[in-house]
Amino acid sequence: MGKLTLGHGSGGRLTQELITEITNIFPDKAKLSELEDCAFIGNGYAVTIDCFTVTPRTFPGGDIGELAICGSANDLAVRGVRPEFISLSIVIEEGFELEELKLYMKSAAAICSDLGIKLASGDTKVVPMGAVDGIFLTTCAIGRSELNLPLGMTNLQPGDGILVSTSIGRHGAAIGASRFELEAEGLKSDCTPLWPALKDILDLEGLRSMRDCTRGGLGTVMCEWAEGRNIGIEMEEAKIPIQEEVASVCDILGFDPLYLACEGCAAIAVSPDQEEEALQRLRKHEICKEAALIGRVVDSHKGLVGLRTSIGGMRVVDMPVGEMLPRIC
Amino acid sequence: MGKLTLGHGSGGRLTQELITEITNIFPDKAKLSELEDCAFIGNGYAVTIDCFTVTPRTFPGGDIGELAICGSANDLAVRGVRPEFISLSIVIEEGFELEELKLYMKSAAAICSDLGIKLASGDTKVVPMGAVDGIFLTTCAIGRSELNLPLGMTNLQPGDGILVSTSIGRHGAAIGASRFELEAEGLKSDCTPLWPALKDILDLEGLRSMRDCTRGGLGTVMCEWAEGRNIGIEMEEAKIPIQEEVASVCDILGFDPLYLACEGCAAIAVSPDQEEEALQRLRKHEICKEAALIGRVVDSHKGLVGLRTSIGGMRVVDMPVGEMLPRIC
Repeated sequence: MGKLTLGHGSGGRLTQELITEITNIFPDKAKLSELEDCAFIGNGYAVTIDCFTVTPRTFPGGDIGELAICGSANDLAVRGVRPEFISLSIVIEEGFELEELKLYMKSAAAICSDLGIKLASGDTKVVPMGAVDGIFLTTCAIGRSELNLPLGMTNLQPGDGILVSTSIGRHGAAIGASRFELEAEGLKSDCTPLWPALKDILDLEGLRSMRDCTRGGLGTVMCEWAEGRNIGIEMEEAKIPIQEEVASVCDILGFDPLYLACEGCAAIAVSPDQEEEALQRLRKHEICKEAALIGRVVDSHKGLVGLRTSIGGMRVVDMPVGEMLPRIC
Repeated sequence: MGKLTLGHGSGGRLTQELITEITNIFPDKAKLSELEDCAFIGNGYAVTIDCFTVTPRTFPGGDIGELAICGSANDLAVRGVRPEFISLSIVIEEGFELEELKLYMKSAAAICSDLGIKLASGDTKVVPMGAVDGIFLTTCAIGRSELNLPLGMTNLQPGDGILVSTSIGRHGAAIGASRFELEAEGLKSDCTPLWPALKDILDLEGLRSMRDCTRGGLGTVMCEWAEGRNIGIEMEEAKIPIQEEVASVCDILGFDPLYLACEGCAAIAVSPDQEEEALQRLRKHEICKEAALIGRVVDSHKGLVGLRTSIGGMRVVDMPVGEMLPRIC
């Protein structure tokens, strides 16, 4: 690959290859696994970084400020880490309206306030017109683990149930609908902090692994788990919660909802005996009302994800290669 | 102020105002002081974040990859914190050459390797052509303090000597010369990690405060100290080390070297009895051969910085308001 393509930013196969190329250049790494979203750096501290370039900057259900905090905080939450500090870097175009910037900062601050996250450090760069499209935010979240052992795909075992904490694809569908000016009443991004709900299942002994299904969606997370741990995963299409509005947008725009970005939906693997308990605890939270058991880790077709379709067949879910929707987050 | 101007990104007065506006929106902050470059977050851990948008991406003496590590690592080093981890976020334009990206990653990795910094987490976003000019890097550095008390401007006392660890303005002059295609043989950015030199003066009891003179240069740091601590500072123009090539570029382009960015120069305040010892220790390092005592904290003209000029007068050094050179770092 000579030149970078949008597919390298999709969160799918090409992103994985690019990240491997880049990280291989660095001799020392703190990560336990390249494929997890945050790294432990000692004394229980974990850190994660994400850049947000979403367009439009305000979308149904959120804006870039809210997204920037949720995105990084959720990367910690799914590892059992309480988000405590945020460092925020802003790159902004000359001529940008200060009032609009303040709007996003207020959204960001509101999420921080809800979660008890402190602003730790910041940076602001104003660049000449045309050097950046509006505003990009980068957030680095830091927190301390509330668990003895970090959650992660290495814990996955055949038989584990796979849950989603809510219906899938709402963020991607909301951005897609905004971008293509589709009327989609009731459709909203799921952008929200996961910590308040996920913290309530952390003491389940059978909890194995959690991931927020951001870029690349649920399908990509399942592929990363199957390939990363060399296990099989089977999902049942009929059990995957999808809102009608999301399904409609997918129909119109030709998106596969399995690969649509979520910003407030976690995939959760848990031992079979604790699936029901996990679901009950999650559903007590408004943001997890649609939580569901959607599949299982299996001992066959290692490294592959299968989707049992509603008409009875099974199709392979592969990691996406291209990019459906750039600047989704 | 309705719209943001390049001056808001200068590192000077407008940047200070903008940062105050933004940080005031966040109810909880970890910072001991808004005006220091890194924040302590418990157990001796400190964190800092910076975005790098420099153009040209390769300049005499460095490139954006090297700069991105040095910039964040130096923000820790001046607080007595050994940089240990880097999180790296990349925003890159569709069509960017992979080989060029790898070049910058190699520069970044080399500095990490020299300092024993581990890559902790990363993020890569590829955006459509035109959404970003080439590549922007954001780095978040984390480390642990090697001191009992953090260094900072609150420690400054009348009588303290002000040192610079090397000659000033080399980064700004190198970027300026590149940008305007000036021939400037021998002129190189001072972009370098400060930790290897600064760690050797950390055990001096008289060490009060250190700051790397990045955006806004030495002049801005002195103003921040004078205003932030409400003390007077006096510098002697003739004692401030400036390389001939830097002075020439300033003459041609009309820059004031006091406000030119440095990327490997620290301003250091130390008690009068330990000035000489500090200088001797610093000068043992190749990157600090030009270290010099340039001024003193005084008990008069509180909040103001004076520069005793070579022809005998004293002029007030104020914080810059506009922007001499956007995208300097």
